[in-house]
Amino acid sequence: MKPPIIVLIRPQMGENIGAVARAMANFGLLELRLVAPRDGWPNPQAEAMAAGATDILANTKVYDDVAAALADTTRAYATTARPRELEKRVVTPSETMTEMHSADVCALVFGPERTGLTNEDLSWCDAIVTIPTSTDYSSLNLAQSVVVMGYEWFKQQRAPSDQPPAESQAAPLEQYEQLFRRLEGYLDQSDFFKVPEKKIGMWLNIKTMLLRGRFTEQEIRTMHGMLRALAESDNQAS
Amino acid sequence: MKPPIIVLIRPQMGENIGAVARAMANFGLLELRLVAPRDGWPNPQAEAMAAGATDILANTKVYDDVAAALADTTRAYATTARPRELEKRVVTPSETMTEMHSADVCALVFGPERTGLTNEDLSWCDAIVTIPTSTDYSSLNLAQSVVVMGYEWFKQQRAPSDQPPAESQAAPLEQYEQLFRRLEGYLDQSDFFKVPEKKIGMWLNIKTMLLRGRFTEQEIRTMHGMLRALAESDNQAS
Repeated sequence: MKPPIIVLIRPQMGENIGAVARAMANFGLLELRLVAPRDGWPNPQAEAMAAGATDILANTKVYDDVAAALADTTRAYATTARPRELEKRVVTPSETMTEMHSADVCALVFGPERTGLTNEDLSWCDAIVTIPTSTDYSSLNLAQSVVVMGYEWFKQQRAPSDQPPAESQAAPLEQYEQLFRRLEGYLDQSDFFKVPEKKIGMWLNIKTMLLRGRFTEQEIRTMHGMLRALAESDNQAS
Repeated sequence: MKPPIIVLIRPQMGENIGAVARAMANFGLLELRLVAPRDGWPNPQAEAMAAGATDILANTKVYDDVAAALADTTRAYATTARPRELEKRVVTPSETMTEMHSADVCALVFGPERTGLTNEDLSWCDAIVTIPTSTDYSSLNLAQSVVVMGYEWFKQQRAPSDQPPAESQAAPLEQYEQLFRRLEGYLDQSDFFKVPEKKIGMWLNIKTMLLRGRFTEQEIRTMHGMLRALAESDNQAS
């Protein structure tokens, strides 16, 4: 699916535009559009802040108005915390990504830092996306809002094959059995299970706690080594 | 559920600490802990950047080391993009939130801006959280990483609750520290670490494997008892 286009309406601080470009790069978003940026374009502050994301800025296009910026899009979501009197659907960031179709040219629209989107801006958008935040303190900054949307996009893209990186394989149970035999032998010799009728329950609990973390084969070998060292060396001094 | 505690290990820029506090406020996270902040504490740059989130900074506590900062926690997730040779589970941000139990005192641990978390830092954490990002450009900044984790926390809080059933409570980390001290003492006495220069790596792996299953307080007591029995009884016969 084509990554959504980020559209900033009347952005004010160049630093924020640069930070948006970085957040876009983090999540594989490629195309940035600006509508009437306050300080014109290009903007040295934006470039200073963009770090490695300069490709995005080099390809950024500037438009005079919202309608022009969204002209070729088939779906536009406006990100705003404020509830509006307009009859727009309100969706969450993850619902936004679920709704996008593969044929869509989708825009995520963000307003100016201080004032947010006007109703005129919103009138060009299909729906409002609200990022859930604390009611006491709801002001995510521009780049952070892009981080959340980009994160949801990237997550959704990966979802079908969301394999975690391969971990080392847990040891087969038979290796645990050998480990348990050694441990039980040592504990018996040490008179750890002082009350015979309690041994069954205690031993079950010990096996349970050691199995919970599922050691690898290497870790099982380490456990054997530790137990041997502890049980077979003479450290009565301790 | 209690919001997770944000723990910043050796943070460098005061501005970033302030930005973290803001991101926390956005998503209802309340408690910030710092381990050995580079520029000391309090930090005027942090306050300038925190805007409305000054309560969080006023209540921020500072610790000398990771273990002290996590002493009362029962679960700690380390946020890092880098794959490690340590045998830690790797989870996504949303999995992190799903795993938290209502009784947990949970910490989300973040490393220094440039260098990230060391293996020693990671050895105190139960799992690694990796925020999925573009492989070409994966460097989320500190506050943005907190935004993603805070967003997932807040989202999960609002979602219809399908909490996993409460398990017995995991022991706070300070109990692990005591256990590790005992084990390390016994292993030293037993000459388990035959080659001194290999000890650091071996000992990290041992802590990692024992922490993975997060013992309960009762299980920690059992471990103490077993180790004492093994190390202090005379079973040369075995």
